[in-house]
Amino acid sequence: MKRRTFLKSSGLAGVAFTASAPAVIAQSGVRWRLAHSFPRSLDTVFGGAEIFAALVRDMTGGKFEISVHGPGELVPPFGVLDAAQNGTVECTHTASNFFAGKDETFALNGIPFGMNSRQLLAWQFEGNGLELMRDFYADYNVINFPMGNTGAQMGGWYREEIGGLDDIKGLKLRVSGLLSGRVYERLGMVPQSIPGGEIYQSLEKGTIDAVELSGPYDDEKLGFHKVARNYYFPGWHDGSPQIDLFVNLDAYNALPDDYKEIVAAAASQAHLRVQARYDVLNPPALRRLVAGGAVLRRFPAEIIEAALREAQDVYAEIAASNPRFAAVFEDYRSFQQDQDLWFSVAEASLDRINQARR
Amino acid sequence: MKRRTFLKSSGLAGVAFTASAPAVIAQSGVRWRLAHSFPRSLDTVFGGAEIFAALVRDMTGGKFEISVHGPGELVPPFGVLDAAQNGTVECTHTASNFFAGKDETFALNGIPFGMNSRQLLAWQFEGNGLELMRDFYADYNVINFPMGNTGAQMGGWYREEIGGLDDIKGLKLRVSGLLSGRVYERLGMVPQSIPGGEIYQSLEKGTIDAVELSGPYDDEKLGFHKVARNYYFPGWHDGSPQIDLFVNLDAYNALPDDYKEIVAAAASQAHLRVQARYDVLNPPALRRLVAGGAVLRRFPAEIIEAALREAQDVYAEIAASNPRFAAVFEDYRSFQQDQDLWFSVAEASLDRINQARR
Repeated sequence: MKRRTFLKSSGLAGVAFTASAPAVIAQSGVRWRLAHSFPRSLDTVFGGAEIFAALVRDMTGGKFEISVHGPGELVPPFGVLDAAQNGTVECTHTASNFFAGKDETFALNGIPFGMNSRQLLAWQFEGNGLELMRDFYADYNVINFPMGNTGAQMGGWYREEIGGLDDIKGLKLRVSGLLSGRVYERLGMVPQSIPGGEIYQSLEKGTIDAVELSGPYDDEKLGFHKVARNYYFPGWHDGSPQIDLFVNLDAYNALPDDYKEIVAAAASQAHLRVQARYDVLNPPALRRLVAGGAVLRRFPAEIIEAALREAQDVYAEIAASNPRFAAVFEDYRSFQQDQDLWFSVAEASLDRINQARR
Repeated sequence: MKRRTFLKSSGLAGVAFTASAPAVIAQSGVRWRLAHSFPRSLDTVFGGAEIFAALVRDMTGGKFEISVHGPGELVPPFGVLDAAQNGTVECTHTASNFFAGKDETFALNGIPFGMNSRQLLAWQFEGNGLELMRDFYADYNVINFPMGNTGAQMGGWYREEIGGLDDIKGLKLRVSGLLSGRVYERLGMVPQSIPGGEIYQSLEKGTIDAVELSGPYDDEKLGFHKVARNYYFPGWHDGSPQIDLFVNLDAYNALPDDYKEIVAAAASQAHLRVQARYDVLNPPALRRLVAGGAVLRRFPAEIIEAALREAQDVYAEIAASNPRFAAVFEDYRSFQQDQDLWFSVAEASLDRINQARR
């Protein structure tokens, strides 16, 4: 029996409570398990799940407890979506583009030359984004809540400086994104899939030439600046990737209405705090990396222009074979164009003035 | 008796509930009144309070109700802070810089050449910002929660095109901010305080030459483009101003712990949605304004440079006479410098590439 219904009906009926009431309340406590895709060592994003769980607990006076589990504790890092879908766990905190192999629509949390984090939120909360994505995710028996964003990332670590398109032909690059992988391939690079633990050695030995990762704070932990000092920007490969909370639909639908709202609001606050953590931790990490030998380099214009062109072809290609992606992406792109028009006026102008001050 | 304590103690003691229990639950219902500074017609920011109240109600199963009142319904628009301070209302949704006349520290929600909205959130949630500001606001018997941000605004409407510093000397400008007013004054302009309802006529008649306001969606409602078509950007005068929820400290402290967390999380979700609304509504409003005769103009570099220089002098002047402002502003500025360094690398580069695409 749901607690809310219990209180409401008992209140309406005005009947005397019996000694069994506390037991009913105890039974109504909710216990969920959250399986994370990211290791505990990535305290920014893993920390977001801990913030979320603590908020849900505190907002329910301890009656709704969510235990947070690292990758491999309950399910493998990339098994989290299946686990949430089939109810092995009630929820997961993960990056949806990990699952773009199932359907490219999963990649829309962060695509090459995609929206920045504020625009992506606007699309979801006040545009069609959340409705469109939830409609898609419902086919996987999950509902999503935005719960973190890294902001624009860095473009990755390269062993050698790259001057233009000729320099990247044949380079072996470790990538994580399916869509960016296709763009790199069209640029003549050779995308590689290498387990996290083997990247450093591959880069050191020269088995690979470059690696696309995250931003300064996350990247610093992996120490790549010691073996591939050229740190390119911006991270065009995944826009400003969002991390989502995915909840099994049956578990979600079984919640009383107040708990449903609590899940959504806790996710929103965790979202803000994950992004805030990235923003606070990235600047000093960038400084330490540069002090440790990293050389900041902007991607040559020739490469950016070619990547932008190839990305459009990749989108057209996917849209031609995936009507679901086509429909959502059309809405996404038209929203982004509107946003970029407006952001280019006041927002970018003021940012530029402030950034030029130091 | 607080509901949480009630459930806990009854559960622990295991005593039989009596027929009086439902009455106790009913008594524990919380009723608050929120006084707004902004008119209902500004559906973006006023809507934020409605979103907040609905979330609090839904997260508590209707046991915590907050009624939302427009300016003048309970207290005048600029009387809201006093009302929250002395408990006439439990809370208010307002822009703290309205109260900079009491103490310039109130202005730090949006200062000339201040942080953008994401940086401001990072400062508050993961920097020292929220702690510093709450310590300050405690002197006014209120606690604040970020609950909306317009993003960078436009610089205002000018009857005549301005080519440089010589053109603005002596111009009468309607301003709302205390700090920006001081900067305009140092630029040789004549800041004016004019009630909202009289601005249009003053601008039409030429009693004033310009008006500093908000962004396209809010501004459009006032129709200034018909009488002062030069629409300048960016709105350097107040960075990206934040709107806050202020709660009377006694009312806040009387809440059970779960309700405290619910207030914070509801404010966070309302924050995201207010900003999302502005982002969704501004681009089409900007298009309509331009179609209706508005001419977009960037402030001449000479004016921006002078304003930036004068703003630093204003800050130094205030800091010299207001140690509280000095302490908080020092933390703010050093945080902003770090943020701008990092944002100028990946974030701004990717934004610029995307904005150049259309």
